[in-house]
Amino acid sequence: MAESTNMRLRLPLLCIILEVILIILFGTLVEYNDDTHAMLWNENRTDSATRNDHENEFYYRYPSFQDVHVMIFVGFGFLMTFLQRYGFSSVGFNFLIAAFSLQWATLMQGFFHGLHHGKIHVGVTSMINADFCTGSVLISFGAVLGKTSPVQLLVMAIFEVTLFAVNEFILLSILGINDAGGSMTIHTFGAYFGLMVTRVLYRPNLDKSKHRNSSVYHSDLFAMIGTIYLWMFWPSFNSAITNYGDPQHRTAMNTYYSLAACTLATFAFSALVNPEGKLDMVHIQNAALAGGVAVGTAGEMMLTAFGAMIVGFLAGTISVLGYKYLTPVLESKLKIQDTCGIHNLHGMPGVLGAVVGAVTAALASPDVYGHGLQRVFADVETGKWNPQSRGGFQAISLAVTLGMALFGGLITGFILKLPIYGAPPDTHCFEDGLYWEVPGEEEGHQELYEVATSNEVEKLSS
Amino acid sequence: MAESTNMRLRLPLLCIILEVILIILFGTLVEYNDDTHAMLWNENRTDSATRNDHENEFYYRYPSFQDVHVMIFVGFGFLMTFLQRYGFSSVGFNFLIAAFSLQWATLMQGFFHGLHHGKIHVGVTSMINADFCTGSVLISFGAVLGKTSPVQLLVMAIFEVTLFAVNEFILLSILGINDAGGSMTIHTFGAYFGLMVTRVLYRPNLDKSKHRNSSVYHSDLFAMIGTIYLWMFWPSFNSAITNYGDPQHRTAMNTYYSLAACTLATFAFSALVNPEGKLDMVHIQNAALAGGVAVGTAGEMMLTAFGAMIVGFLAGTISVLGYKYLTPVLESKLKIQDTCGIHNLHGMPGVLGAVVGAVTAALASPDVYGHGLQRVFADVETGKWNPQSRGGFQAISLAVTLGMALFGGLITGFILKLPIYGAPPDTHCFEDGLYWEVPGEEEGHQELYEVATSNEVEKLSS
Amino acid sequence: MAESTNMRLRLPLLCIILEVILIILFGTLVEYNDDTHAMLWNENRTDSATRNDHENEFYYRYPSFQDVHVMIFVGFGFLMTFLQRYGFSSVGFNFLIAAFSLQWATLMQGFFHGLHHGKIHVGVTSMINADFCTGSVLISFGAVLGKTSPVQLLVMAIFEVTLFAVNEFILLSILGINDAGGSMTIHTFGAYFGLMVTRVLYRPNLDKSKHRNSSVYHSDLFAMIGTIYLWMFWPSFNSAITNYGDPQHRTAMNTYYSLAACTLATFAFSALVNPEGKLDMVHIQNAALAGGVAVGTAGEMMLTAFGAMIVGFLAGTISVLGYKYLTPVLESKLKIQDTCGIHNLHGMPGVLGAVVGAVTAALASPDVYGHGLQRVFADVETGKWNPQSRGGFQAISLAVTLGMALFGGLITGFILKLPIYGAPPDTHCFEDGLYWEVPGEEEGHQELYEVATSNEVEKLSS
Repeated sequence: MAESTNMRLRLPLLCIILEVILIILFGTLVEYNDDTHAMLWNENRTDSATRNDHENEFYYRYPSFQDVHVMIFVGFGFLMTFLQRYGFSSVGFNFLIAAFSLQWATLMQGFFHGLHHGKIHVGVTSMINADFCTGSVLISFGAVLGKTSPVQLLVMAIFEVTLFAVNEFILLSILGINDAGGSMTIHTFGAYFGLMVTRVLYRPNLDKSKHRNSSVYHSDLFAMIGTIYLWMFWPSFNSAITNYGDPQHRTAMNTYYSLAACTLATFAFSALVNPEGKLDMVHIQNAALAGGVAVGTAGEMMLTAFGAMIVGFLAGTISVLGYKYLTPVLESKLKIQDTCGIHNLHGMPGVLGAVVGAVTAALASPDVYGHGLQRVFADVETGKWNPQSRGGFQAISLAVTLGMALFGGLITGFILKLPIYGAPPDTHCFEDGLYWEVPGEEEGHQELYEVATSNEVEKLSS
Repeated sequence: MAESTNMRLRLPLLCIILEVILIILFGTLVEYNDDTHAMLWNENRTDSATRNDHENEFYYRYPSFQDVHVMIFVGFGFLMTFLQRYGFSSVGFNFLIAAFSLQWATLMQGFFHGLHHGKIHVGVTSMINADFCTGSVLISFGAVLGKTSPVQLLVMAIFEVTLFAVNEFILLSILGINDAGGSMTIHTFGAYFGLMVTRVLYRPNLDKSKHRNSSVYHSDLFAMIGTIYLWMFWPSFNSAITNYGDPQHRTAMNTYYSLAACTLATFAFSALVNPEGKLDMVHIQNAALAGGVAVGTAGEMMLTAFGAMIVGFLAGTISVLGYKYLTPVLESKLKIQDTCGIHNLHGMPGVLGAVVGAVTAALASPDVYGHGLQRVFADVETGKWNPQSRGGFQAISLAVTLGMALFGGLITGFILKLPIYGAPPDTHCFEDGLYWEVPGEEEGHQELYEVATSNEVEKLSS
Repeated sequence: MAESTNMRLRLPLLCIILEVILIILFGTLVEYNDDTHAMLWNENRTDSATRNDHENEFYYRYPSFQDVHVMIFVGFGFLMTFLQRYGFSSVGFNFLIAAFSLQWATLMQGFFHGLHHGKIHVGVTSMINADFCTGSVLISFGAVLGKTSPVQLLVMAIFEVTLFAVNEFILLSILGINDAGGSMTIHTFGAYFGLMVTRVLYRPNLDKSKHRNSSVYHSDLFAMIGTIYLWMFWPSFNSAITNYGDPQHRTAMNTYYSLAACTLATFAFSALVNPEGKLDMVHIQNAALAGGVAVGTAGEMMLTAFGAMIVGFLAGTISVLGYKYLTPVLESKLKIQDTCGIHNLHGMPGVLGAVVGAVTAALASPDVYGHGLQRVFADVETGKWNPQSRGGFQAISLAVTLGMALFGGLITGFILKLPIYGAPPDTHCFEDGLYWEVPGEEEGHQELYEVATSNEVEKLSS
């Protein structure tokens, strides 16, 4: 076993090769954009009297970026530390694949979002978009958590980031739809991609690691750090790349209300589905976030707080019910082993969010939005705008996303099945010790053991 | 016992009913404000050439809002995880009652702060205000921590939020006083409300749960996460709703200096009051924050860094002394069982903050503030401004707040005493297991036990 | 022993005296600056029609300040909790010396950065600078972690802050060089100062505390909280005091890419240097951050993402190799006991950053920077600008910094060696119990012990 999971050559080689490729591609293709380039920013400045430093997109986007960044690294990273002996891998592999994905995503998204004379232009908006794409990979990571080597995860990220960029291009650039918070592009895509990968990697004997596939008291508290940060900053996530002014402001607020309502639904249904009325940490850690996912598309629209709260309440409800009743069936019937239950947190709420977005878009009208209509729906300006067809395109986008995710996950799953990545054996899943130097138990415990030993010896010898 | 504390029907019913009521009221009463409404923001925009997106209040308030949000959910939530077996409830119930309170507060505050044609207008400022009101409820939660069911906490929140809004209305709208950081409206109110509630809910036999009413090593570290976040973001808290420009800037800086001085006082007195000169985590976790509370009123005024540091130093001192000498007396003589010692962190420093605010307001003059006077004291513009009477109104406000808090806490305490909420028995306070599915001990410990067992058996059998 | 390490008088006396001195000096010397003073801000406002509240530096700097603040208190504080029984001291002493240092730094930096009619003017920029200086002290703290009393740490901070301000004055004001992110002023200075202090305080018998000088499973997870926050917010750190507009934006982005590349290098080399290919938490916690240190000087220049990634990759590589091969040699040959390995995280990457800064400055030209040149290199405006000599001054600054740090550390080390500060004995280093009231083990463990005991008794008695 030690042989087959040894990372000594595999992981360094892959990391170094990938980073060297990234550096070469960045050197060839990437340039500062108008807001980060010393010459370009200050040239434009001189041209126009009205352009001042405070108009640099940095001041509109960077606080949102940092909130998103916290969600990606602390939020996702700590959310997955709930497993008793997989904390190092949860935070650590999350860190590794996120650091890789954001670089790769910059290139892939830059390529599809439009080159400038053959160059990719970068700035804070591309940083947010790269973090978004990374989020999608981390969602999929949740499905295969504990059952994959870091090499597998990096390979998964290579493919998933690429397909994410293609899907995003189809949705945003070809179909021209709205999805600022990524109900479809991020959550639905990441969830169904990951579910398909874990389906292909099905392990019939995963029971052998069952004793490690659960939480302990402290690991649940570490996971709550992730949950709470995701919850708090979700308004920033959904609003990070909307248009300035009212759309950004409104999106943050809609998300805030959706999450609040979702939290009450989560506590309610968590207690309701338990025979003793006890709350389940798995639900609180995950389902309370579903409200953020479900307003990822409609959040920038005139959804109203009322609408956001209904959506959030529904999302929390289906998410808890999914954990309780659907996840076991997915595993037993469909052979989908979904470690973190991403289907309940990102899959179903993502689909709900897509549907809500389609309906809200189809109901949009100048009577409600006034001159603000074109700031939400870009095609108003082009004159091609029609709310019903707009709603239709939103719905088509969901189908495209599901197709791309399932197909991409299928292919990627088979690639990950090759016996060359040092995947953990069925007996050692959910175990940090395979890939990490793990320190011993606490001194206190050791002392406890020694005390117990010597006490007993004395007591019984006498 | 299992019968009486079972939450299976109580909690879901209450959560669902409350959320449905909230949704209906939001649907009836709540509208986007000028800065979040697609039509209104863009109409005004066209009207005035000078109004640009960067003037949307989002860009002035949202970063502060997010810092406040972190204080509410991470700060308060983790601060209370210091108890050894109450971490799930501390973070979890904090999450639940905060999610409820911010919705309910939006309605109550919106109602009292002034309706617009019968509607409540919401935006980032209302979000900050709702979070502030929520903070008050969480302060009270600290007093009853470990001794109340989640149903009791939600019921407490219903009443406390309502009375908070009334008190805030009296202070800010009728008396027209300053309290941007809420020394009175948030801290004094929340503290004395909570102390009165816990007084009414006095448990003579709480000793039976004494062994759980203390920290362990790791739980103290989790609590420090809460402390440090509260400490760092307090400058944002106090400045979140001041006027733009110099008042917001000055408030943040005054708070920063007050907290720094407070921290040195806390370490000094924590060591001094201990016979062996050892520092006490309880003091560090709590008293070091008193400096933020104590400049909640005067922070926006020309207090100077010098003044802020004196106030902070005093606040830290009285807070540590309170923990050491007053809390035991409050429990033994006045039957006030204050789990987190909120009297030392929010009560006394809140009163100190009110007094400092009254004095600083009474000393205000155009010689010091120049044209900035009207940006701090709104009544300068109305011509009714008089520093001495202003100071007097600040002092009256403290009395009003204390009265409202004590009276409200009394009533609410008796309501919470009804035997219908599934409160924990005296023997099972401070225990997550009553309301949560709690995982077993760590595998490591289990193994340790097994090793200890088998080793001993072998050794002694031979 | 209890006698000699007792803090009951030493710590309170020092804290109170220091704070009283600080308060007096602040009262005498410190004033609000133009952006925080009610009169000054609003006077200027009336004078100029173009000056609006959104131009207050608060809105440009405060979000960055808060990110830096999180790095100082959560980042450094939790990063050092990796030790199994030193978590209280790591977070707690970090808190204490940071709270002191930021006040003292405000005075020292204010004195050297230029008085205004004999007064120090404070605002958000001085708050950031004070936090930066504090960071330097906390770096040095990492070298002596576990081997010093809080009194020693405060004394160290007094001297280090003072020398930091002198060195910073020489570099920025006399030599006129660039170092916005502090590769030299903060990291190189803090590291070599701390290394020299720990050299002078060399303990030949530190082995006696060896069993506590390591991590346990949960303490490594707490440390990862520190790591991830430092990593995420490093872009804000490096960009916090650059010029507005493109420099701030570009610095944040360069840092982001450097850190991402650094992370892949860290994982690669961590696995490569381990015989079994296992990752080492020490590397991940520390080396992954070296990329932020190494672009601290060049980050604001036109380094390009390509350049930043190369620098980050190199920094991660030398940092891991340093932990593996250099740290043991430093201890055995040079008698430098570097608890946190600050030489690998701040020392070598800081020097690398200085060199990269010198080279990038020497390569600067109007062809690349256009009108933006003067926004990065201030001496362009004065007409004294010459890229080669500029690069030379950058290099000279490194030498000055190293000299100041080593000399200052030497003196400070000898001062700290006096037997009056209650330093821990060799047998009780890395132990919270010396300076803190430490709670017992968890109830669960206690029960475990009891169960083990009684089970054994029964089993064996029968």
